[in-house]
Amino acid sequence: MAEKSMEKLVSLCKRRGFVFPASEIYGGINGFWDYGPLGIQLKNNIRDDWWRNMVECPPVGPDGHPLQIVGLDSAIIQNPKTWEASGHVGGFNDPMVDCKESKSRYRADHLLVISNRNDTGENRMYAFIADDSDSEDRAHKLLAKYEKVDLPLSEVDYQVRPLVQLPVEDLQRIVGPDVKTPGSLTEPRQFNLMLDTYPGVIRDETNKAYLRPETAQGIFLNYKNVLDTMRVRVPFGIAQVGKAFRNEVTPRNFIFRSREFEQMEMEWFCHPDDAKKWYEFWKDQRMKWWLSLGIDPENLICRDHEQDELAHYSSACVDVEYRYPFTTPGFGELEGIAHRGGFDLTQHQEHSKVKMQYFDQERNERYIPHVIEPAGGLTRGTLVLLCEAFTLDENRPSGVYMKFLPRLAPIKAAIFPLVNKEGMPEIAEKLYLDLRGKFTCQFDVKQNIGKRYARMDEVGTPFCFTIDGQTKEDQTVTVRYRDTLQQERIGIDKVEAF
Amino acid sequence: MAEKSMEKLVSLCKRRGFVFPASEIYGGINGFWDYGPLGIQLKNNIRDDWWRNMVECPPVGPDGHPLQIVGLDSAIIQNPKTWEASGHVGGFNDPMVDCKESKSRYRADHLLVISNRNDTGENRMYAFIADDSDSEDRAHKLLAKYEKVDLPLSEVDYQVRPLVQLPVEDLQRIVGPDVKTPGSLTEPRQFNLMLDTYPGVIRDETNKAYLRPETAQGIFLNYKNVLDTMRVRVPFGIAQVGKAFRNEVTPRNFIFRSREFEQMEMEWFCHPDDAKKWYEFWKDQRMKWWLSLGIDPENLICRDHEQDELAHYSSACVDVEYRYPFTTPGFGELEGIAHRGGFDLTQHQEHSKVKMQYFDQERNERYIPHVIEPAGGLTRGTLVLLCEAFTLDENRPSGVYMKFLPRLAPIKAAIFPLVNKEGMPEIAEKLYLDLRGKFTCQFDVKQNIGKRYARMDEVGTPFCFTIDGQTKEDQTVTVRYRDTLQQERIGIDKVEAF
Repeated sequence: MAEKSMEKLVSLCKRRGFVFPASEIYGGINGFWDYGPLGIQLKNNIRDDWWRNMVECPPVGPDGHPLQIVGLDSAIIQNPKTWEASGHVGGFNDPMVDCKESKSRYRADHLLVISNRNDTGENRMYAFIADDSDSEDRAHKLLAKYEKVDLPLSEVDYQVRPLVQLPVEDLQRIVGPDVKTPGSLTEPRQFNLMLDTYPGVIRDETNKAYLRPETAQGIFLNYKNVLDTMRVRVPFGIAQVGKAFRNEVTPRNFIFRSREFEQMEMEWFCHPDDAKKWYEFWKDQRMKWWLSLGIDPENLICRDHEQDELAHYSSACVDVEYRYPFTTPGFGELEGIAHRGGFDLTQHQEHSKVKMQYFDQERNERYIPHVIEPAGGLTRGTLVLLCEAFTLDENRPSGVYMKFLPRLAPIKAAIFPLVNKEGMPEIAEKLYLDLRGKFTCQFDVKQNIGKRYARMDEVGTPFCFTIDGQTKEDQTVTVRYRDTLQQERIGIDKVEAF
Repeated sequence: MAEKSMEKLVSLCKRRGFVFPASEIYGGINGFWDYGPLGIQLKNNIRDDWWRNMVECPPVGPDGHPLQIVGLDSAIIQNPKTWEASGHVGGFNDPMVDCKESKSRYRADHLLVISNRNDTGENRMYAFIADDSDSEDRAHKLLAKYEKVDLPLSEVDYQVRPLVQLPVEDLQRIVGPDVKTPGSLTEPRQFNLMLDTYPGVIRDETNKAYLRPETAQGIFLNYKNVLDTMRVRVPFGIAQVGKAFRNEVTPRNFIFRSREFEQMEMEWFCHPDDAKKWYEFWKDQRMKWWLSLGIDPENLICRDHEQDELAHYSSACVDVEYRYPFTTPGFGELEGIAHRGGFDLTQHQEHSKVKMQYFDQERNERYIPHVIEPAGGLTRGTLVLLCEAFTLDENRPSGVYMKFLPRLAPIKAAIFPLVNKEGMPEIAEKLYLDLRGKFTCQFDVKQNIGKRYARMDEVGTPFCFTIDGQTKEDQTVTVRYRDTLQQERIGIDKVEAF
């Protein structure tokens, strides 16, 4: 059911111009997607809402005064020392396993192994790739599949364990995901997730640079610049929206895990004693913001990280998670809010020898601020709104409509002449020209009106205004509501206020 | 004078938070820049104005009806076949010259050579790097420098020629830019301007991909998708704003020639017979748009490319050029409007085997549309507005102010309490909270009012509203005009309408 609705959503996204596979005419490129005319409008609406909420109208703080947050747009390519300091060169690695037989490569921590509890010499172990679905359920199915070849499912007292928790000598007994005989998997090896490139005219190691794997470090690099130029005082924030790149081993689930994606990150610099308080503040704020986009509270949770999930420098982290069709009934990441302590500024101070301390006049104290980081996914936010808006409805010809909040809908209003003659297109075009400066709208004269409405349902346009024969007589138009399918007549001069 | 004002502008940009060198704490990285809190607001304002003018409210066409243009956001990394088809893999090269002695590398077409007209065996030739300043003037200065070593300037009947026009045997006699003896320069060799990277888990040639050197090809890749999904009919346009990367050999002139930059491109698909007409239409439109941003018409020209400047597939191209401080009295590129013919779609059809023909119902004709491409620089547009706004004025304490049009100014209004007491900050903060939802404004309580005004002059804020003792009595505030320095009192309830 969930998988089926994901398939339908991907197909609607393609059919209606939300998301296309990148380079589709050349067979695509794994992990990259293009945003079509409607997808970019939706994504821009989320981006602008976030920017407004963060930079132009930041929330009012616990003391009743508005917070200070400024914007930034740092380069995707930075001096590589940035990533040494941040730990990404040394530590931003995934353990990888190669299959010597199939030549495939897998993320070791994404492989699960089914084995039977007694572990007699005769029993093989089967590795499979964990996706975001329930792994016990997957294991059942896989075992049923293998059972035809080897083991009767009813006789097996099986268990499922992550490959990385097995002793090395067990690797010999594991059948890899794409092969039929055991022993072809190598030991896990490190694989860096950063894409690299060589700016400069000479291609050597001194010119090796990286495409940023997160927008956050660009903010830390400019913390001093902002402090020196913008008259901000701690606590304050720096916000940035932009592309980032990670060489994911197995891009999957549509735009959920892609190699090129977009983030919305804000670093909040505060006194170490206040960090815990601000962490709670931002956790609350961010959850509220996502809900303000019209997401059903049933589908959104805040999940505190377990101690063993935390980065070594982080004292607390919480994920805002959404119930994606491919994680149902579970949840998947949408935003992480991390208490990063003084880690990043301290690292950059050590590596750059530039002092990162802040002199706090009110406290008469010098310190390196601690950082609370709400790091949201713009790409994932777009996916969430697509999933959330996707509504099956047998009562309409399209069978489905996209229930975006009006303020986030790619097109707010469609203006249709009922037929393409009798002066109707002229009136409709005039109305379109009057309105388009105020909000995004569309003007469409062709096809029968039912087909045009059906298209607007799939596009998620909340209101359609139709000019018909009566318009010329009494200056009224029909407004059709996307969600209720109701229609009523209003004066043509009332459309804008509407 | 021009150089000096460029220096001052760069310094103001750094000091006030418009543009910072990327990775400054690590000594920077050549060719990359970060946009600070004010720079990103300015850049976003230009971006949004372009998007509005192209996608949300496209111009009205010659037939009196609004044009059809849709937006797009394609990935930076595409299938590498894209760049084979577009000609960038084979042809997007600059001829490079290496210096065997200094190990430096130069763009061959950027090197000029001074030599003396008689060319006796004794006379050496000196190469220097052409920048955007006057080359005869540079040659004079350089010869004066060399003259101390070798030749008295007065005795020399010198000439300056591009290195690429000299016969190969002359290379032996040329002294390279960073050395003192002749003969160290190699013959020109090709150097590709695209940055490459290796997405995928295996680092081999089959996985080699490129960072896009232009946003245009992402549009051509999606031409069919847009046609199939968006109910557009030829003529129509697809517009995109986004980052692009070129491994410039000598990044220079601040953000004018950088390795990471942003473009605003629109591809206009039309019938081949109409292409010339549309070319003229867009030439006119684009010039008007740039002028609408408040650029002095004296500083903006439209320069038709000479036949030998045109790409082989292009039948016409015009540059919108601006008089940058470093090109004065000449001009430098800001936008190119090219008549690309059917080149791109034909190339992609050949390489992908996907049909790119369009069936025109009205004409009952099948054809590959021709393309008119207005390709503007968002980065360069930002630079132009910074240059244009920069106004020296001895009558104010800052000595300079930034004369942005109010609608493009990073901050539209500042709200100041005269002093940080007596209830003034409370009134000011309330006013700030009322206004900030409508336009970008700033609230600042510290420092004496003169310093705050001076800062707003350098930031380019058109209006400052000050709350003083009288405000509590008669509910009026002082409004100060950036350009005239005049002040007047208006009712606090009139500020929003103002």
